[in-house]
Amino acid sequence: MKDTHPTHIALHDAGDADEATFGERGARLARLARVGLPVPLGRLVSVDLVAQVAAEGAEAALGDLISAVAGRLPPDGLLALRGSPERTAWGGPTALLNIGITDARLPALIERVGPGCAAELYFRLIAGFGVTVRGMDPDEFETLVYDQVKHSGVSGEAELPAEAWASLLQQAKRAFEADTEQPFPQSVETQLAAAIDAMAHRWHTPSARILRAARGAPEDAGIALIIQRMVLGIGERACGAGIAHFTDERSGVPLTWGRFLPCAQGPDVLMGLRTPHLITSEERARAGQSAKALEEMIPGAVTTLAGLWDMAGSGLGESYSFEFTIEDGTVWLLDAAPGRRSSRAAVRIAVDLARKGAITREDAILRVEPRNLVEHLHPQIDPTAQRDTLGQGLAASPGAATGKIVFSPEEAQALHAQGEAAILVRVETSPEDIRGMHSAAGVITVRGGMTSHAAVIARGLGLPCVVGAGDLRLDAKRQKLVARDGRSFDAGDIVTVDGTRGEVVAGAPAMIQAELTGAFETLMSWADQVRGIEVRANADTPADARTARGFNVDGIGLCRTEHMFFHEDRINVMREMILADTREDRVRALDRLLPMQRDDIVELFSIMRGLPVTIRLLDPPLHEFLPHSRDEMHTLAEAMDVPVSQIVARAESLREFNPMLGKRGVRLGVTMPEIYDMQARAIFEAAAIVNLQNLEQVVPEIMIPLVSANREAEMVKARVDAIAAAVMAEREVSLTYRLGVMVETPRAALRAGDLARSSAFLSFGTNDLTQMTYGLSRDDAGRFMRDYVNQGVYPEDPFHSLDIEGVGELLLMASQRGRATNPTLTLGLCGEHGGDPASIRFCTLAGFDYVSCSPFRVPIARLAAAQATILSQRGEVMA
Amino acid sequence: MKDTHPTHIALHDAGDADEATFGERGARLARLARVGLPVPLGRLVSVDLVAQVAAEGAEAALGDLISAVAGRLPPDGLLALRGSPERTAWGGPTALLNIGITDARLPALIERVGPGCAAELYFRLIAGFGVTVRGMDPDEFETLVYDQVKHSGVSGEAELPAEAWASLLQQAKRAFEADTEQPFPQSVETQLAAAIDAMAHRWHTPSARILRAARGAPEDAGIALIIQRMVLGIGERACGAGIAHFTDERSGVPLTWGRFLPCAQGPDVLMGLRTPHLITSEERARAGQSAKALEEMIPGAVTTLAGLWDMAGSGLGESYSFEFTIEDGTVWLLDAAPGRRSSRAAVRIAVDLARKGAITREDAILRVEPRNLVEHLHPQIDPTAQRDTLGQGLAASPGAATGKIVFSPEEAQALHAQGEAAILVRVETSPEDIRGMHSAAGVITVRGGMTSHAAVIARGLGLPCVVGAGDLRLDAKRQKLVARDGRSFDAGDIVTVDGTRGEVVAGAPAMIQAELTGAFETLMSWADQVRGIEVRANADTPADARTARGFNVDGIGLCRTEHMFFHEDRINVMREMILADTREDRVRALDRLLPMQRDDIVELFSIMRGLPVTIRLLDPPLHEFLPHSRDEMHTLAEAMDVPVSQIVARAESLREFNPMLGKRGVRLGVTMPEIYDMQARAIFEAAAIVNLQNLEQVVPEIMIPLVSANREAEMVKARVDAIAAAVMAEREVSLTYRLGVMVETPRAALRAGDLARSSAFLSFGTNDLTQMTYGLSRDDAGRFMRDYVNQGVYPEDPFHSLDIEGVGELLLMASQRGRATNPTLTLGLCGEHGGDPASIRFCTLAGFDYVSCSPFRVPIARLAAAQATILSQRGEVMA
Repeated sequence: MKDTHPTHIALHDAGDADEATFGERGARLARLARVGLPVPLGRLVSVDLVAQVAAEGAEAALGDLISAVAGRLPPDGLLALRGSPERTAWGGPTALLNIGITDARLPALIERVGPGCAAELYFRLIAGFGVTVRGMDPDEFETLVYDQVKHSGVSGEAELPAEAWASLLQQAKRAFEADTEQPFPQSVETQLAAAIDAMAHRWHTPSARILRAARGAPEDAGIALIIQRMVLGIGERACGAGIAHFTDERSGVPLTWGRFLPCAQGPDVLMGLRTPHLITSEERARAGQSAKALEEMIPGAVTTLAGLWDMAGSGLGESYSFEFTIEDGTVWLLDAAPGRRSSRAAVRIAVDLARKGAITREDAILRVEPRNLVEHLHPQIDPTAQRDTLGQGLAASPGAATGKIVFSPEEAQALHAQGEAAILVRVETSPEDIRGMHSAAGVITVRGGMTSHAAVIARGLGLPCVVGAGDLRLDAKRQKLVARDGRSFDAGDIVTVDGTRGEVVAGAPAMIQAELTGAFETLMSWADQVRGIEVRANADTPADARTARGFNVDGIGLCRTEHMFFHEDRINVMREMILADTREDRVRALDRLLPMQRDDIVELFSIMRGLPVTIRLLDPPLHEFLPHSRDEMHTLAEAMDVPVSQIVARAESLREFNPMLGKRGVRLGVTMPEIYDMQARAIFEAAAIVNLQNLEQVVPEIMIPLVSANREAEMVKARVDAIAAAVMAEREVSLTYRLGVMVETPRAALRAGDLARSSAFLSFGTNDLTQMTYGLSRDDAGRFMRDYVNQGVYPEDPFHSLDIEGVGELLLMASQRGRATNPTLTLGLCGEHGGDPASIRFCTLAGFDYVSCSPFRVPIARLAAAQATILSQRGEVMA
Repeated sequence: MKDTHPTHIALHDAGDADEATFGERGARLARLARVGLPVPLGRLVSVDLVAQVAAEGAEAALGDLISAVAGRLPPDGLLALRGSPERTAWGGPTALLNIGITDARLPALIERVGPGCAAELYFRLIAGFGVTVRGMDPDEFETLVYDQVKHSGVSGEAELPAEAWASLLQQAKRAFEADTEQPFPQSVETQLAAAIDAMAHRWHTPSARILRAARGAPEDAGIALIIQRMVLGIGERACGAGIAHFTDERSGVPLTWGRFLPCAQGPDVLMGLRTPHLITSEERARAGQSAKALEEMIPGAVTTLAGLWDMAGSGLGESYSFEFTIEDGTVWLLDAAPGRRSSRAAVRIAVDLARKGAITREDAILRVEPRNLVEHLHPQIDPTAQRDTLGQGLAASPGAATGKIVFSPEEAQALHAQGEAAILVRVETSPEDIRGMHSAAGVITVRGGMTSHAAVIARGLGLPCVVGAGDLRLDAKRQKLVARDGRSFDAGDIVTVDGTRGEVVAGAPAMIQAELTGAFETLMSWADQVRGIEVRANADTPADARTARGFNVDGIGLCRTEHMFFHEDRINVMREMILADTREDRVRALDRLLPMQRDDIVELFSIMRGLPVTIRLLDPPLHEFLPHSRDEMHTLAEAMDVPVSQIVARAESLREFNPMLGKRGVRLGVTMPEIYDMQARAIFEAAAIVNLQNLEQVVPEIMIPLVSANREAEMVKARVDAIAAAVMAEREVSLTYRLGVMVETPRAALRAGDLARSSAFLSFGTNDLTQMTYGLSRDDAGRFMRDYVNQGVYPEDPFHSLDIEGVGELLLMASQRGRATNPTLTLGLCGEHGGDPASIRFCTLAGFDYVSCSPFRVPIARLAAAQATILSQRGEVMA
């Protein structure tokens, strides 16, 4: 149960109101009122009191208040009733405006706003009341207006004369009576009570509940109500309604802009029935509009609004946009919302507010959505630019790039050599395309999912990439890219890849560049001071390591050594090792790989000096290193001087039904121990070399993959320890190192207590762990994952956002069991979840020491880690 | 630490001695003595006291006892010192006999047994003492005897004259002194103390410990000692040593048989230096031996032995074989062992003993090893038959069959049609071979493991099968099977498959038939009365169901519907369904499959009437149903009148990287709901049909495979419920059914609390659950599982014996969580572990309702279930 109580309170006395009691809008209006902003007087009815109304009826639960409010209403006064759900995002009822007009009270209103306006307001009340309270069809009233417009021969409803509104009023009354079999209620109390009843009941219907649940609302989500004096944007003097923003959505730089409709009520602006006026003359000049701007129509109004924005910023530490109404030249605020804005703007505004002292640094950290930081890391298409979108796909790797279409990796390399940007377009990519991808400015594939080869490699390279662009057709024969509208593009034509949105755009729209300095840098440094969990990077190559180091990483949490063997000059030695018939031949090949592996690791250690580097021993099944095509097999056979049949036979004997669950990881290490021996030696020799050169000593961390039984780890440990001792003796150095286990199988998680006894660390490989916990291969899940998420079978793709309920429980269980037997155990998470803010929150709460993510996710992870630490210190419940 | 204490006790006072204190042999001798059997007097030295001897020396730890024993020894008396390890199977020291002969005591012994025997006994003591106490080389003494035999010109040592033994005695003394640099000890005390010291120390040497560990002994395994008066089988009157058995090892029918050596000591019989006499004249007649039988040589001895066997049976509830010595015509028992016997014998003996009231029915149940029941279910090669073994492989499916070699399924069918038995020999089998396997009497494959296609299918069919017979070579070109010794066999040659032992035998050795009546039937009925857990069968076909019903099963726990689609007349319709481009086409194909599926299920329900039948909805990925070879694709394309390219393309698009973790199970049900719709309809219509015909109503249980999220089960449930309602309305019947979830993913186990809310049952598919918990594909694990188990990386193959520590924890967790939210939840286990006794014990302890196993494992499971119930009621700790 929530900790609220049935109550109602004057809006201007409710400065401490919280959202659980009075809803998001109610609480916000009360705060605005508290710092002196012009909010119309009103009364907040609490969530629990509204629940009581739903159960007992408005008369029983709220009769006194309704009588009092109605009794105090001036003869020409009107009321507005608005819903205030706990979260605006959960949806809620339309406001009912102009409550309080009756036949008896009409003359006073006419006195105030004139006969036309009064009749229009009365018409609006009956229509609103009919639809929202009595469930009438909105069409009925719209048809009346439509017919009247035609009948009066005007161009729109704004031009209807007073008599037309008088006639519409009568028609509305008749329609209401015909539909509801009752005359329109002729007392303020009855109108208000009925409206409150309706809003309370509607919220609690099953269909409303289902709709809300779809938006993430909990079962017991509540709504509060706001009863407020109507400010009339309609009338004969300077009046109208509008929306005003005060910062540039893209950059966060102060800028006043917005829309205004003279002689209108709030919803009119939002619904866009009439073309609104702009706010400032500067804006109007830029847009080339002839209609006057608000500051030209009602002098002083914009200055007033800007002053109010400043007040709100200092008083509430937030940069708001305002929904406002001008009544007889006076500005009133109907609502205020933290302005929509780009991440760059959000970062600048948050840092500015914190520097002004309006908010704390911690609040500044909490205000920026970590995921949106990708906008800083890569160039983006200017949000204001015109887009000629050719097709859509999955936003596989963020950022945007413009270049010439190429259809092969070779062309990409050629273009790159000439200093030109290439956009590589492929049906799918394969490992052979990697060099082409290195040379491309962006990548588009017609097939493939978020975890396809192209997507994974592009994210690693920080290359804008759209995959699965099924809208587009690649005519391989004629070398053409065909857009969804039939336009076709040849090699050399200019396109732009928007990997942030997942769009392919024709031509070269305006771009905004990456931005890693200024406010971004400041916010990051604040985040680093706060966060209580390390952020490491998954980095396999010196390039990855340099990128990560550039993003101020705390170390490498996962270096996959196998990637080192795919280099052109190594793959054949690796293949010799795999094809060896005897242990001796295998060792001979490994002896040749040793210096190559050692050199790579020396480079990595040098880049990362002073920071921990976790190196994972060989993981993939050996068949991944063998050639797949007949041609390649022939080439290899020639190079190795063996019959091709021998290569075919070995490839066949290594083939696996389920490679993911096959002979890989520590299973290779146990059955062919000489492979790990070589790797351990390379690591220790590299450490010895680097430690002689540097003052900052390297402490290598060696990680054993795919463990499912403790004995596997023990067997590897015995050999690694022996090799460490041997290297130290040979090189007459002393080395410190740490040996740990990668927890990727559910069994390793269950047996973490055993594993921790002889491990310095456990690192959760949540990619594989998720696959095994779900019994779901990532490579194969792509074909139905979108359906699954769309149908709500899985709330989210568990490969993107950590499955807290299942995989998360295994993580918690393992960390508790591990720490129980080894209190100094280091716990980390590597895998793509390491860059996911929700997963980082989870790891922070679970007391992990680090998360490790791809280099380009490092800033996101640093910010998310800081947020998690702040929220956990504040004791707030996490999502 | 064990709960014993350093002590020694008179053997005849130690009737309650337990094995942890006095070892297996010591405890058994004490029990024999207690019930009045003639066991020589003696003293038991406890395990802990022996450990103390090892630490402090015999003099310090046991000096008093040694003095007392030596002091009380008559002048012509001798002692035997035997080890008594906690388990005989762990091995232990050779007994030291004839302790107590010294030069001074020799005359008294000569008085008793004559000079030749006395000298022989002294020689034996010196040799035994030299070897076991002083570590001399046994060759030294054997050479002396060998040379003496040559020198005396006799045919063997039994014929050496007294003088020769006197000479040998002197030679032995000299050899002893030369080797040990000490004269042979000349006091009873010294001899005994030194022998005790040696036995205690030897047990505790590192090499002995390693040897024991290899036999399964724990680190702290102990040994007790038995000091006993020597009964002399050597002497001038009726004497000798022998072994007597009282039941037929094959059948368990009472039968007296054995071996006897006149004038010999126990070990002589076992070592087989001389040809022994038989025990009874009947035996002798059957064997056609001319040498007299014991009952002819020493009248009354065999009658005495039979009487002792009867006493032991009534007194101790066990059918023993005896190791005996006859001294001056008196029978003494040196040891008694539960006779080696076949399972059939074990069953008959256990039932006989229980009928006699010597043991309880529960004890009878506990005495039979469930795994050995396979001997009852299938014909076996007569254990006494001569075997001409051609090669060995894995014992993939038990039983034996003789027949003519065939090399193709077609030949098997042809031979079968002629009423002849065929033994199908293949390199490996594939699904195309299934019909051939149906027609074969036995199957041999050269490759493949215990979970290969051939092995799995053969077990299902109850067909004797040897796989991975790497000893054999299949010369496919010349159509020859080549044995390991080079002999080659053609099609039509007679061989015998021994699937129980994993051997291929030439010709047609004598066989014993399956036996499911008599004692077997009785024991099974007792087991059924006791057991607290149901035993169901995994049965896909009517044949399986009939087999299972024949084994008195409690229902079907797993019917895999996909097998129904592999029939020749269905597979093409199934393929049409898979190749359909639209939902409509798919539904059209499914409409044609519906009556086929319904008919199958009607048959199944009819066979199983009155018992629950759990039907699993379609599980395998769709590509499994498509043809794999180019030829088959062409045939299919013609049959369906579509271009072959379309079939290739669909097969390609359905191909998966890891089919085990792919789009299968409920993932098909969610994304192509019309498939499960059809299956649910078939099940309900079948139930309606059968329920109209039978008084015993069918309650179908529908099982959803591969669930990983509760929502999947809910979505299927909603549709299944709707179809049930529709069928009931259409057919105007009322149907009861139960819907449950197959728990195969670790996540389903973790989320069992959710799943149980809307499930009637959870059935653990431990095959897949093991694969996913370990991250290990069964199909791929074969390549290194043997290494893994041999190296002790895994204590056992987790696909054979349930991994209690990992998978078992998930099972326990899931059952607790499931029962917590749904107290009436039924819990079952299907998968091959359902037939594994240790896993059945686990399920019983975990409070499961049933296990389900392959039909031929049902009797084994019934017995194992009864044992588990008894042990758990007795509160005994389980292995």
